[in-house]
Amino acid sequence: MTLDSVKKFDLDAMFKPRSIALVGASSDSRKLSGRPLRFLKEYGYKGTIYPINPNYPEIAGLKCYPNLAAVPGEIDLAIVGMAAAGVPAIIRECAAKGVRAVTVFSAGFAEMGDEGKRMQEELRKAAFDGNVALDGPNCAGLIGVRDKVIATFNSAMDRGSILEGPVSFVAQSGALGTYMFAAAQDAGVGFDYWVSTGNEVVLGFPDFVSYFVMQPTTRTIIGYMEDARDGEAFKRCALDALRAGKPLIILKVGESEAGAKAAASHTGALAGSDRVYSAVFDQCGVIRAHDVEDLFDLANVCAAPKYPRGPRTALMTISGGAGILMCDRCEESGLKVATLTEETKAALKKVLPAFASVVNPVDVTAELVATPDLLVRPMEITLADPNVDSLVIFLGMQVHNGAKLADHIVQAAARTDKMVAMNWIAAPPVALQKLRENNVPVFSDPARGIRSLGALVNYVQRRERFLAKNLDPSRAPTASRGRREQAGITDKTVETRAVIQVRPMIDQARKEKRKALTEGEGKAILELYGIPTPGRKLATTAAEAVKAAEEMGFPVVMKISSADITHKTEAGGVRLGIKDAKEAGAGFDDIMAKAKAYNPKAKLDGVLVEEMIGDAVQVIVGFKQDPRFGPVVTFGMGGIFVELIRDFALRVAPFDEDEALAMMQETKAYPLLTGFRGDKKRDVAALAKVILAASQLAQDFKEDFAELDINPVMVLPEGKGAKAVDALLVLK
Amino acid sequence: MTLDSVKKFDLDAMFKPRSIALVGASSDSRKLSGRPLRFLKEYGYKGTIYPINPNYPEIAGLKCYPNLAAVPGEIDLAIVGMAAAGVPAIIRECAAKGVRAVTVFSAGFAEMGDEGKRMQEELRKAAFDGNVALDGPNCAGLIGVRDKVIATFNSAMDRGSILEGPVSFVAQSGALGTYMFAAAQDAGVGFDYWVSTGNEVVLGFPDFVSYFVMQPTTRTIIGYMEDARDGEAFKRCALDALRAGKPLIILKVGESEAGAKAAASHTGALAGSDRVYSAVFDQCGVIRAHDVEDLFDLANVCAAPKYPRGPRTALMTISGGAGILMCDRCEESGLKVATLTEETKAALKKVLPAFASVVNPVDVTAELVATPDLLVRPMEITLADPNVDSLVIFLGMQVHNGAKLADHIVQAAARTDKMVAMNWIAAPPVALQKLRENNVPVFSDPARGIRSLGALVNYVQRRERFLAKNLDPSRAPTASRGRREQAGITDKTVETRAVIQVRPMIDQARKEKRKALTEGEGKAILELYGIPTPGRKLATTAAEAVKAAEEMGFPVVMKISSADITHKTEAGGVRLGIKDAKEAGAGFDDIMAKAKAYNPKAKLDGVLVEEMIGDAVQVIVGFKQDPRFGPVVTFGMGGIFVELIRDFALRVAPFDEDEALAMMQETKAYPLLTGFRGDKKRDVAALAKVILAASQLAQDFKEDFAELDINPVMVLPEGKGAKAVDALLVLK
Repeated sequence: MTLDSVKKFDLDAMFKPRSIALVGASSDSRKLSGRPLRFLKEYGYKGTIYPINPNYPEIAGLKCYPNLAAVPGEIDLAIVGMAAAGVPAIIRECAAKGVRAVTVFSAGFAEMGDEGKRMQEELRKAAFDGNVALDGPNCAGLIGVRDKVIATFNSAMDRGSILEGPVSFVAQSGALGTYMFAAAQDAGVGFDYWVSTGNEVVLGFPDFVSYFVMQPTTRTIIGYMEDARDGEAFKRCALDALRAGKPLIILKVGESEAGAKAAASHTGALAGSDRVYSAVFDQCGVIRAHDVEDLFDLANVCAAPKYPRGPRTALMTISGGAGILMCDRCEESGLKVATLTEETKAALKKVLPAFASVVNPVDVTAELVATPDLLVRPMEITLADPNVDSLVIFLGMQVHNGAKLADHIVQAAARTDKMVAMNWIAAPPVALQKLRENNVPVFSDPARGIRSLGALVNYVQRRERFLAKNLDPSRAPTASRGRREQAGITDKTVETRAVIQVRPMIDQARKEKRKALTEGEGKAILELYGIPTPGRKLATTAAEAVKAAEEMGFPVVMKISSADITHKTEAGGVRLGIKDAKEAGAGFDDIMAKAKAYNPKAKLDGVLVEEMIGDAVQVIVGFKQDPRFGPVVTFGMGGIFVELIRDFALRVAPFDEDEALAMMQETKAYPLLTGFRGDKKRDVAALAKVILAASQLAQDFKEDFAELDINPVMVLPEGKGAKAVDALLVLK
Repeated sequence: MTLDSVKKFDLDAMFKPRSIALVGASSDSRKLSGRPLRFLKEYGYKGTIYPINPNYPEIAGLKCYPNLAAVPGEIDLAIVGMAAAGVPAIIRECAAKGVRAVTVFSAGFAEMGDEGKRMQEELRKAAFDGNVALDGPNCAGLIGVRDKVIATFNSAMDRGSILEGPVSFVAQSGALGTYMFAAAQDAGVGFDYWVSTGNEVVLGFPDFVSYFVMQPTTRTIIGYMEDARDGEAFKRCALDALRAGKPLIILKVGESEAGAKAAASHTGALAGSDRVYSAVFDQCGVIRAHDVEDLFDLANVCAAPKYPRGPRTALMTISGGAGILMCDRCEESGLKVATLTEETKAALKKVLPAFASVVNPVDVTAELVATPDLLVRPMEITLADPNVDSLVIFLGMQVHNGAKLADHIVQAAARTDKMVAMNWIAAPPVALQKLRENNVPVFSDPARGIRSLGALVNYVQRRERFLAKNLDPSRAPTASRGRREQAGITDKTVETRAVIQVRPMIDQARKEKRKALTEGEGKAILELYGIPTPGRKLATTAAEAVKAAEEMGFPVVMKISSADITHKTEAGGVRLGIKDAKEAGAGFDDIMAKAKAYNPKAKLDGVLVEEMIGDAVQVIVGFKQDPRFGPVVTFGMGGIFVELIRDFALRVAPFDEDEALAMMQETKAYPLLTGFRGDKKRDVAALAKVILAASQLAQDFKEDFAELDINPVMVLPEGKGAKAVDALLVLK
C-alpha cells in the first residue's frame, strides 16, 4: 500500500494543511469536538480554520459554517469527531467539496461488531472513491509540530508547549501514543510529526512511515506497534527508511507469550509470531525498542548528527567505577572497548594527572571538578585515535561547572566526524539543555547510554551491508533469480519444470484429502529444487527390499512409506544400519507389521530402502507460513538443540546466501559445523543452498504448503555436500 | 570481621555523634577541609562542633582549638583530611583523647606504592590499638541524614537538601557514591545513612551493612561494590540483612570480561569471578542491581511497606497497549499474570464500562480521564481476589486528575495487605509526590516497574526458604554434618578416616612435585567421600589386563594410568568397549605404546581396566577455589553443553541438598535427567550426593586442592546411583 497510498493520496494536505475544517466544532473546549480548535488557536496555527456546525453562527470568534459545501475557500484537512453512523456521509461531502484529507476520531466501527464493520467498509469506499486521505477512524488525530497543525484531542497538548525536533512518531494506540508523546519530550526527544493511526481503514502504519521518510525535517521515525497488518507494506516502508538512512525505531508489544495473549485479546487478531517480527525488523534494518524509555533513548541517540562507523568505543570517565560499569555493558550491546594506540596513551599521559588511567576507559579523575578545562585535550586526543569509532564520556553532577563542561563537549563533538555521547548522572539542567540543543545524546544511566549506542552501531552496520548490496530483498526479482542459481536451478526451463512437476503432487494429495505429502513425494520435490537426498527405492515385498539394498550397497536405512504415518520412528517404522540381506528381508516384514499395528487404517505404500549417510552433522531446515509476513524459513541443529534449548534461527523469505550463513552463525551450536573439538569442517556452502532452496519452495507454493520440515539434513564434510534424509511437507 | 567490628568499635559514635572535631579545619568553605564545617552548619547539626587548627583562634564563629587534647569536652567523631604522612599520629592523638570514631578523607596510602602501604599498616595499628572506629582512608566520609551528620565533602550536599528516608547506602567509590546519592534522591529514594568506605583498613563494606541492618530507621541497604575483599565477612553481613528482612541491594561492577579487566586495572586486584559473586548474592538473598537506575528502582520497590507473597500479579491499565507491555515483561521477571476468579471478573463487569476488559490485564479504559472515581472499586475488587499477590497499575499523564487518582491509589494501598505498585508515564509532579510520601513505588516505565517487582518477589521467596530452614549456610556446623550424612558419611570415625587417608596422598604427590593426583588416587578419594566409581584394577602387563577384564566381565574400558598424562584421550590412552580377552591384551600394548610416544618422559603406572558403565546420562561435577569466596562447586551436562553453550551452575560451599537440586534445575539441559523424549528418569538424588560430597571435599582440603573435575559422572536410571568415571584433582 505504501508507495501507492502516498502517491494516490495527498498527505501534504493532511500534515501541512493550508486550511482546516472542524466538522461538528464545539465551543466547549473541554469536549473532544472542542479541543482541536482551542489547540490550533493556542499554539498559533497560521492557516485558515473553518468551524462547521449548523447550530452556531460563530465559535470562539471564528465564523461558523452550516456544512462543508458552504465554506467559501478550499479545505485541505477536515477533522471529524461525530457519531460513527454519520461519518461515511461526511466523507462523501468532503469528496464533493474537494477536501483532500480527513482525520476521524469517531469510534464505533470494526471494533464494535457487524454493523460497525459494515460502516467501516462504507467509510473506506467513500474515501477511496473520493480520493480522500483518511486517518482513523477511532484514532486520536495527528500533529504537525512546525506548522502547529494540532489536529488532535491529545491531552499532551494541555501542557502548553511542544518540543520541536527531528523525530516523527507513528502510534497504533491513541492513549499510549499520547502519553509517550509527552514523556518523550520530557526525555529530550523533539518532534516533527505525530500521528495516531486508529483502525487504519485507508492509510496505515506503513503509509505514514513512508511519508515521514520523505520529509527533510524528519531524521528519525519512532513507532508504537501492536499489529503490522500488511506485512509486505510494512517491509517496504522499513526499507524506504533504511535506504534514506532515517532510523526506524519500533516498540512492538506482544513479545512474550503472556503479552501475545493479551495482545490477541486487545486487538482481536492473532498477529503472527513475535520472533518473526524480530526477524523482519533485523532483515529490514528496523531498530527494535523493548520498552518505553528504550524507545526514547534510541530516538535520542539516533538524533546525533554523526553516527559511529564501527563498534570500537572509547570510554572517558571522571570515576573509575563508572568506567567499569560502561565496560560491563559494552560487550552485550555489541560494542568493543577500543584499544588505544601507544601514541594516544603517550599523549594522554602528558595532559592528565600522574595517577590517571590512560588505558581505555580513560580516567580523567576528580581533578576535573576543580579544573573543567582538563577535559578538552583528552577528548581531542582520544577522538583523533584511528582505533576509535566513538567516544562516550561519563560525568556526575558538577553543579558549578556543568555549563562549562557541556560547552567543551559540544565543541569537541562539533570538531570531530565521530560520534560523541554522554552518560551524565544527576546532570545540572543547564548542561542537559546545552547538550540537547546541540544534538549530543545524553543519558542519565551509563547502561542505557551504552545499550543505545550499541543498537545504533548495529543499525549502521546493517545499513552498510544493505547499501553495499544495493539490494532490496523484498522487491528485486533478479535477487530471486540469483538465489535460484545458487540453489542449482540455473536454467529457466528447469525452474519452470520444477514448479510444473510439483503441482500434480499437490493436486493428487488434495484429491486424496491428505494433510501432507509422502516422504517420497517430499524428497522428489526437494530434488527438483536442487536439494540432494539419499539414493532410495520403494520396496513392496521383502524380496524387493533385499534386491534394492544389494544394488545400493550396505549398510542401508529402511523406513515405512505411508502418507498416514507422519511419526515414523514412533510407529516403529524406521531401522538404521541394516547390514546384510538377511537383516533387510527381516526388516521389511517387521516394519510393515509394526506399522499395521500402529495404525491399522493406514494405507501402506511399502518400505523405502535408502542409502545410509555416515559422518554427518545433523541439522533441521524448514519453513512455516506466517499470517503477516508469509514464508518464514527456520534453521537449527538437530535433536536436543532445537527441542531443549530452542536454539534456532529464522528469516522471512526472500533472503540471500549471506543471510543463510548468518542464520547458521547465530545458533549457539554453530561451532559444530566448523570443526568443533577436532571434528571435520562441514559443507556450510551446501547447507546454505538447502536453506535458500527451502525458501524458494516456500515462496513458489505459499498458497499450498503450510510447512516444511527437513529433519535431519545431513551435513557432510567440506566439499561433500548436504543431503535431506527426511522431508515432511504439510499442505495448507 | 562484621559482628566483631560492630562489637569492638563504636559505630554509634561515628553515625550518631554528639560532638564532631574537624582536624585541620579551614575557613575556606570551598576547600575539602572547609566543606564539612559549612555543611554541618547549613544543614543544622545539633551536636557540638570543634574546629581544630593551631593557626586560628576561631573559624566561622566557632572557637578553634590548637589540637585534640585541648578540646574541653568529649569527642565522638573526628574528621581528618590532612596529608597522609600525618594521619597515623592524629589517630594516636584521637585514641589518647578518647575519640571513638574517625573518618579519614586523606589519600596517599596503599594506593600509592610501598611507603603508602607502610603508612596504611601504621594507621591500621593505631586504630586497632586505640579502639578507634575508622572509615577510610581515601574516602569521601559519611552522612547521618536524620541527625544532620554531614561528615563529608560530598558535592551532593551543595544542592542544599537531602531527601530523608529508609534507605542506607554503602559505597566503595567516593565519586560514584556521591553522584548516585544525588541521582537516587531525584529518583525518589530517601536516605537514612550514607558512607564512602575508601581503602577499608579498619571498617569495611560488611561492617557498615551490619550496622545499618541494626538501625530501626533503616529498612533497605543499597551498596556499590568493586571488590568484596573478605568473602566470609561479606556473606555474614548479607545473612544479617536477610535474617532481619532488610533487603540488601548491590550494584557490583566487573560483570563482563571487559568490565572485569577494567576493574582489575582500577582496583589493582583480581577480585574473583563475577559469576561467583552472582552465586553468593543468590545464596545469601542479596538483590543484584545491574546498573545505576536499576539500583534506584529496586530501592524504591523495597521501600514499600507490604511485600508480595508470591508472583501472581494483577495488572490494571488505562491503555490496552500498556497492559500488553506489562505482560511482556512479567515472565522474564519471574512474575505470573494472575488468573482472576470468575467472581472477580463478574464484579469488575458491574463497575466498568461495557467495552472494558475484565480479564487480567484489567482495562479501566479512557473513561477514567473523565471519571477518576472509576478506579476505586476495580482496585478493591482485584485486590480482594485470592489469586492475586500484588497489583500493578498503569496510568499516563492525567494533568487534571493526577492528584485525585493518587489519593485513590494511596488509600487502596493502605487498606490492603498486598503490594500495590504504579507505572505512571509522564505523571504530574503532585501525583508523584503523594505516591512517594506514602511509600507506593512508582515507575516512569512499565518495564522497569515490572522488573523491580519481579526482583522483590524473588527476594521474598528466597527469604522464605531461608527462614523455613532457619539455617545459616555460612556458619552452622550441624548443617555441614547433615550434608556429610547425605553424602553417606554418617559415622564420625569414617569421616575422620576419610580425611586422614587423603592427607598421605597429597603429601606423596607434593613430594613428587606433581601438579595433580593420579586418576586412581582421585577415585580413591571420591570413594572415601561416598562417591561411587566403577570397579577397576591396575594392570602392569597385558596378561594382568586380560585377567582383570575377565574377572570384571566384558565389556570393559581401558585407560592409561600416569600422573604425567592428564589429557588421556588426546594421548590415545583411552579405549572403550573392549569386548574380549584378545582385545584386552592388544589394548594394553597399544595404550602403553601410544602413551610413550605421546610423552616419552612420562612415568607410566600401567593401564587401568575398568567396568564399563552403560545407559547413563553424562554430567560434569567439580570445584574451584575462588580468591574471595573459597570453594565453588560447579555442575553441568557433559560434553558440548558445557563447552559450547556454557550451560552450567555454580554454588559457593557450603550448601544443602535443595541447592544441589536447584543447580541441576537451572541448567538448560536438566530435562535430560528427568526422562526426556521417552528416556528413563535419572537418579538425581544420587547425583545430588555427588555434588555435596564434592563440596565437602573442597572445604576439607581448601588449602590443598585447587580444582576437582569429575568428567563424566555417569547418572544411572532412578534408584541405580551415579558413578564417577574420571577424577582430576589439581593441587594448589
